[in-house]
Amino acid sequence: MTEALDITSPGNPRLKALTGLHRRRSRREAGVTVVEGHDELSLALEAGAVPTTLFTCPDLVTPERAGLVEQVQATGAEVLRLGRAAFERISYRDSPDGLLAVLPDPARALAALQLPTDPLLLVAEGIEKPGNLGAMLRTAEAAGVDAVVAASPLTDWANPNVVRASKGTLFAVPVADAPAAEVVAWLRRRQVRLVVATPEADALVTEVDLTGPVAIAVGTEHEGVTEGLRDAADQLVRLPMAGRVNSLNVATAAAVCVYEAVRQRG
Amino acid sequence: MTEALDITSPGNPRLKALTGLHRRRSRREAGVTVVEGHDELSLALEAGAVPTTLFTCPDLVTPERAGLVEQVQATGAEVLRLGRAAFERISYRDSPDGLLAVLPDPARALAALQLPTDPLLLVAEGIEKPGNLGAMLRTAEAAGVDAVVAASPLTDWANPNVVRASKGTLFAVPVADAPAAEVVAWLRRRQVRLVVATPEADALVTEVDLTGPVAIAVGTEHEGVTEGLRDAADQLVRLPMAGRVNSLNVATAAAVCVYEAVRQRG
Repeated sequence: MTEALDITSPGNPRLKALTGLHRRRSRREAGVTVVEGHDELSLALEAGAVPTTLFTCPDLVTPERAGLVEQVQATGAEVLRLGRAAFERISYRDSPDGLLAVLPDPARALAALQLPTDPLLLVAEGIEKPGNLGAMLRTAEAAGVDAVVAASPLTDWANPNVVRASKGTLFAVPVADAPAAEVVAWLRRRQVRLVVATPEADALVTEVDLTGPVAIAVGTEHEGVTEGLRDAADQLVRLPMAGRVNSLNVATAAAVCVYEAVRQRG
Repeated sequence: MTEALDITSPGNPRLKALTGLHRRRSRREAGVTVVEGHDELSLALEAGAVPTTLFTCPDLVTPERAGLVEQVQATGAEVLRLGRAAFERISYRDSPDGLLAVLPDPARALAALQLPTDPLLLVAEGIEKPGNLGAMLRTAEAAGVDAVVAASPLTDWANPNVVRASKGTLFAVPVADAPAAEVVAWLRRRQVRLVVATPEADALVTEVDLTGPVAIAVGTEHEGVTEGLRDAADQLVRLPMAGRVNSLNVATAAAVCVYEAVRQRG
């Protein structure tokens, strides 16, 4: 069975706009992100994400995966069928599976985050590696964190590598980003206690009250949190570090702190 | 200043043997692993590792990094100076920095692990991704875990990607591997309680006594632990999972369990 194709020319202007989304600035201006591949797109849909457009290549989609095209179509999204050369132009992958969707950027302004009475928040300052932001999102989703805020991040939530590393959770947990100083001011206004994880702290994370409205903040892998964030903290905490090499990954440290909060709040 | 080179021909048999170590079987037969690059090698030395041979390329080593060559030489290791073409043949990297060392495989037999009276162990069953084994080692080192045992692993401790992901901790924490059934028998003989993390457990990890001699076991990302390991467990535990997507990374789950044990044992 052959299906009519909507786009066959790799030079089509819709495709050119799409490949421009490799750049952070273009993603931000367009307010969108890109999810490629059957498994990632399934996870995003499962998490409640609604694509605006699905680009699909009937020539590349295997029969077992074709159901996803119908599933996206049922959400009311625009579905465009591409020829192989056209699809390969827009793919981020070495072996594309013929599925690539554009979705609204899930990142919100701080003011737009809706929080419960005693929120548990995770603040990640200055993170550069998309894999670490993605890993923290997976933890946040599993632990029931109410929102994850990227403070002065060096990558954006809509980065396709964050999407990939987050395994769909980017669309399941409320996320925002803002300069660190704005995050601090916002937490104060919302009367959320800022608990900063840093090896320099005296108190162990297990010795500190993490109930009530709390934001747990972690910094970059190499430098930790900035002085500004440390000075703004209501409480500094550290993890027990027995080793000589002392190099807990930032997403791992965040997970241990967040789950300690879950234990105390349980 | 020019230094005399020991090897200039990329066809040198020493180099051929070295490139063979890309294969797991060759690593195992030779009982060695390979650490490439200044930062990784520094971490390994810091952790107490002693190379047998350092392959270095004076043409590629920047002056700031040359101190590491002397540091390795001071350990009594053989140091071989290679021409650029010869070094590029053995390098695993796109941009080699002229430093590559062969070290004894740190993995031991179970029987050779020396344990304290009340050991805390981490057992990782069936892990395939080197990055996950490396991440668990970093956690184990930071948390003071006494040994990490890979049960029926699909990768080996000496895998260069495990070395890389472990950030030097591979040489700081005792590690072993064995088929899962042997690990279970060994734990029984050593009277170490086997606590298995699985989403099917009734008890939360925070509700279970993790003091005394304890091994915490986690399984693969997709399948979790095998039925055999689950049946052999003295206790099943789970983490609180609030989310819909429910996809905590295995190394993250291990970290949360291990740090809960550290809290209880503190």
